[in-house]
Parts: sequence; structure tokens; C-alpha cells
Amino acid sequence: MVKTAHGKRMPPLALPTCLVGANVQGKANFCTIAWFTMIDDEPPTIGLVMAKDRRTKEGIMENGTFSVNIPGTELTVPVDYCGTHSGRHTDKSEVFRTFYGTLRTAPMVDDCPLTMECLLKQVVKFEGTHMVVGEIVEVYAEEGVFTDGRPDPTVIDPLMYLSSAAAYHKLGDRIADAYHVGKTYRKV
Amino acid sequence: MVKTAHGKRMPPLALPTCLVGANVQGKANFCTIAWFTMIDDEPPTIGLVMAKDRRTKEGIMENGTFSVNIPGTELTVPVDYCGTHSGRHTDKSEVFRTFYGTLRTAPMVDDCPLTMECLLKQVVKFEGTHMVVGEIVEVYAEEGVFTDGRPDPTVIDPLMYLSSAAAYHKLGDRIADAYHVGKTYRKV
Repeated sequence: MVKTAHGKRMPPLALPTCLVGANVQGKANFCTIAWFTMIDDEPPTIGLVMAKDRRTKEGIMENGTFSVNIPGTELTVPVDYCGTHSGRHTDKSEVFRTFYGTLRTAPMVDDCPLTMECLLKQVVKFEGTHMVVGEIVEVYAEEGVFTDGRPDPTVIDPLMYLSSAAAYHKLGDRIADAYHVGKTYRKV
Repeated sequence: MVKTAHGKRMPPLALPTCLVGANVQGKANFCTIAWFTMIDDEPPTIGLVMAKDRRTKEGIMENGTFSVNIPGTELTVPVDYCGTHSGRHTDKSEVFRTFYGTLRTAPMVDDCPLTMECLLKQVVKFEGTHMVVGEIVEVYAEEGVFTDGRPDPTVIDPLMYLSSAAAYHKLGDRIADAYHVGKTYRKV
């Protein structure tokens, strides 16, 4: 393929969005992020990249707990709203119906098909951002998300964010089985 | 929504896949990962989570450079192959056509519509994994990926991985403009 160099710039990546929840001074707050990754699977550990001065991060430090909530596409409007309004100036405690789990201080979004509550393990400090790392202690899912233990992405209907295109997308069709389709590879 | 607790487990997330490239003892090697995130946008910085003993990581440490390559769905078979075969036992240097950029030691995948070369900045050590953090020094794209600076996801056609469902998916339709649709939010 003929390629052109486009310099030092942000790459356009299709990323899942999530709502990070934390109690800030006793009140639920949520922010939208797309910069997060799994860190480990045993125990399940997740890392969230945030601006240093995020209001939600204050709540995470306050309680040592937080939630990660995976919104369906039907929540696009409030998800975008939470990503563009800081809890410092806007009370977002009533944007969603919330519930609490075993950790008791990590507000979760009842309207999301998939939520998890996390115990803060460490904060990794980068030059311009911080990464909040937490162990997932419990996953909550609405009916149909798991069938016989296997997840159904059509029920989750995750909201994908196309960075640098300023666009939200749906997840598309399943096209292959991971860990299997590679067996058909033949060197040409 | 009625939710059920599913315990301490991996959440089913829709994640973009990438091929990480590095020269190991002078030979190109590639591994497939879905655990990565942007760390910063100024300068553009990316973090890749890897098992500690990944062969590709040896090459990254050797040269201080690596590449991140975003495959289209047409590469599903070799991407899955690279994710299930270690460079320790399999020579993957000829799975893809490769090219080098300004850093000279980070092999990029010519068959991918979008590639970037990165300069290693640091390695964050977690209990069970390492995160390789690098600055993106140059983004390369095939024709049509950027039009007037705006990315076209249909040209990239990114390969999404649904973790814990062992499935690959396409990216779906665009459904809304980010940073705009939230303006229509009204508290009910």
C-alpha cells in the first residue's frame, strides 16, 4: 500500500467508551473516558487514564473505590454530556439511576447493561496524565449480557468512540472466532 | 434494569486490536494485542500492556523503538495467527510486507491502513504485566484514511476484539457527533 507520513499526531482509533463513577464528598459523579485498558486478568485489573485534575479522580482518591460502567448506544446523549461537563461545575449525580454494590462507595450506573466496581490499587503518574489502576471485584450485568457464561455483545451494544473523528459508532457484526481463525493461516 | 452479580471476572469489552512490531536481533517480529490505551495527546503517547516475557518486548528494549499497526478486517487471519504464535518459536518476519520509517528500527506493517512508529519512553511494571509507553513520532496512513485531516473509519475498517467472547467484530455505523450530541441532554 502507498502510505503518506502525517507527522506527530493522534492516531484515529476506535475505542470503547466507559463512564467512570466515584463518590465525591458523598455525591455520585461520573466522567466519560475512552482511554482505558485491561492491565491483567488474574486478578482482573483495569487502568483508566485521566487528566490530573479530574473531579472524579478526587472521589477515587477519597474512597479508594470506583466503578466502570459500559453504556449502550441508547445512552449516547448523557455519555457525551458527562464527557463535556466537569463535575466541578455541574452536578451529575442525577443524570443516571445509580446503585451501590459490595464496596458501598462506588456508584454504578443502573442504566448501563454492564458495570463493575473496583478497588483502587495504585496511581501511575505520567507527565501529563495519571492512570488509576484498580482491581475489579465484582461485575454486574443485566439479563442477556451473559448466556451460559458467554457474553452477547448485541445485548451490551457498546458505544464506540472514534478518536480524532469526533464520532460515536456502534459495534459491527461478528466476523470470526478469535484463537481459531488464525489456524487457517498459510504463508504465501 | 435488573442486574445480577457475576463475581470477580473479566468484563466483556469491545477493544481495538493492533499489531505491535519490533526488531528482535535484527529480525522483524509482530504480536497482536488489544490491551492498549492512549496515555497523552501532547505529545501523542501510547501505552501497550504485555506479558512480561513477550518476545516483541525484548526487541523493544533492544532498540528503544516499536511500531503500532492498526489492521483492517481483511487481515483477521494473520492477526489471529500473530496473537496465538510466539516469536520465540515462530518466525513471523514474513507474515506481512514491512517497511521502516524515520526511526529506522521499528518495522511497520505495510498491509495495515494505519501505522505509527514510537520511541520508547518508559516501562511501567505491574504485578503480572508490563506496560510499554512510547511517544508516537510519526503516523503513516494509506490514501483515504485522512481526507482534509479528518479520518475515515470505513477506510481503516478496524478489527475489533470482543474479550471473553473470543470473537472479532467489525466497527459499526456512525451514530452521533461527539462533543455535540450531549448538548441535547435535558434532565428528566
